[in-house]
Amino acid sequence: MKVDVGIVTAAGVLQARLPFQRLIDTDGREKPALRILAEEVFSAGIKTLYVVIGQGLSAECQEAVGRDFANRIVFVEQQGTPGYSAAVLQAAELAGPQPFLHLVGDHLSISSLPNRRCAQQVVECARAENCAVSAVQATREGLLPYYGAVGGQRVPGTQLVEIECVFEKPTPTQAEQRLQVSGVRSGQYLCFFGMHVLLPSVVTLLKELLVADPANSPQFSQVLHQLAQRERYLAMEVQGTRHDLGIRYGTWITQLALGLAGVDREDVLSHLVEQLASSALLAGPVAARRSHSGE
Amino acid sequence: MKVDVGIVTAAGVLQARLPFQRLIDTDGREKPALRILAEEVFSAGIKTLYVVIGQGLSAECQEAVGRDFANRIVFVEQQGTPGYSAAVLQAAELAGPQPFLHLVGDHLSISSLPNRRCAQQVVECARAENCAVSAVQATREGLLPYYGAVGGQRVPGTQLVEIECVFEKPTPTQAEQRLQVSGVRSGQYLCFFGMHVLLPSVVTLLKELLVADPANSPQFSQVLHQLAQRERYLAMEVQGTRHDLGIRYGTWITQLALGLAGVDREDVLSHLVEQLASSALLAGPVAARRSHSGE
Repeated sequence: MKVDVGIVTAAGVLQARLPFQRLIDTDGREKPALRILAEEVFSAGIKTLYVVIGQGLSAECQEAVGRDFANRIVFVEQQGTPGYSAAVLQAAELAGPQPFLHLVGDHLSISSLPNRRCAQQVVECARAENCAVSAVQATREGLLPYYGAVGGQRVPGTQLVEIECVFEKPTPTQAEQRLQVSGVRSGQYLCFFGMHVLLPSVVTLLKELLVADPANSPQFSQVLHQLAQRERYLAMEVQGTRHDLGIRYGTWITQLALGLAGVDREDVLSHLVEQLASSALLAGPVAARRSHSGE
Repeated sequence: MKVDVGIVTAAGVLQARLPFQRLIDTDGREKPALRILAEEVFSAGIKTLYVVIGQGLSAECQEAVGRDFANRIVFVEQQGTPGYSAAVLQAAELAGPQPFLHLVGDHLSISSLPNRRCAQQVVECARAENCAVSAVQATREGLLPYYGAVGGQRVPGTQLVEIECVFEKPTPTQAEQRLQVSGVRSGQYLCFFGMHVLLPSVVTLLKELLVADPANSPQFSQVLHQLAQRERYLAMEVQGTRHDLGIRYGTWITQLALGLAGVDREDVLSHLVEQLASSALLAGPVAARRSHSGE
């Protein structure tokens, strides 16, 4: 199975500025988040990348991503039904009926393998297994409100799970009853990484759901849940971590993770130590400030 | 002595976007850096703030700083001679002949006193001493290339120093010979904090220097050095830290410092521990990645 097309969704209203957020990448170079995402996608052997963006942002996105990728990226301003699933559908229909790598535009990932980024790991898995594959990460129960999570059967002796069900932001009870997967540490669940290889079958599903209810973009996790009922669909525990730019302190945490994983690791650690030492001196007054503000 | 006027310089080309950089302040609220600066200035009892900015940025700055300060802030688009000293002069002439608090727009400060921000400490000192006062911070010799530094005589038993000379980015030899101040730890020097209370005399000096060489903005440290030759001029070791947004990782370090000093301290510490733990797992591959990229 070939995977030649990438789709990045970055049209969410709340996420509109995230692609332009500048970060120092693991290679020590400052880049907009969108550039880091594009490098990830092309490292996986993707030939053409479709980036779904908000209306009127094409020029700014083009500038953010840089000239050397210009011929390989198509910016698609989202039209019609708003929402995440509708964005995927719009790009997938432009790309035509073929498998595609999909990344969400508000997450960055950091591989823990020296020469294989996360997207490459997932694409290689999909090519080998010849089916849809979603990257997942074992995630603490307390973080379930932020993610979609999968349940299913472990493929013995592998990082792979045959997905049977998908829940968006499951409750702890749902997770305990439906999402326990062998080989995952107790109290942890396999949550989406924001990275998938999907087949044209998902486009068929998305269209069915949008025809049934044209005003509302179907929830993407529900689409993937239905996909799991129809075809072989795997979850893969990738070797790496994902970082959500959109949460509180998200850009800061992502920069911390990039810094610790990259060529600037020692610099970043020494800044940390310095600030922690200086803040230890402040700890008394901070406590006082809190008690004042709480009055 | 009254200090009713503030001047923030934020017109530097390299610093043009820094005022709009969004950070979560010690109170847990996300704000543009310019808003944090304005709050610092007004906490010191300043009535009117002049902010010198790049041409065409007034509307964006107005939005960044928020409506509740609108009547108290004058945005001044820099014209004529470019440069830092010229920016101070332009604002000071608009404000008229009176003492002013001056902050550089690319630094944020964090007080280590519960209810007195750094600007307030400096303004109170100037009011009490009835002379120009620059905030300084004891700074390691290795950081001298980033700062202006002062030499002079300690006022016994105080945080104050009567400034005799000012050097911009002194060499270690210059520092050792001219900038040793009693009561400062060996290997450290009193470097500027980016925060000053100055008198109209500095405007006279600036004008003299600009008339002599109209094309070039005089170096601000040289102006302050000459000021020290003419009038009583104090350095004050403020209780707090200053953070340069403009250096490499500057926004990230500033956010770290704000987080550690504020209401989100525990959240920030737990993010740190989590990322450090996860990056310890990566330490092997990172070493491998480095050796590959070095080949």
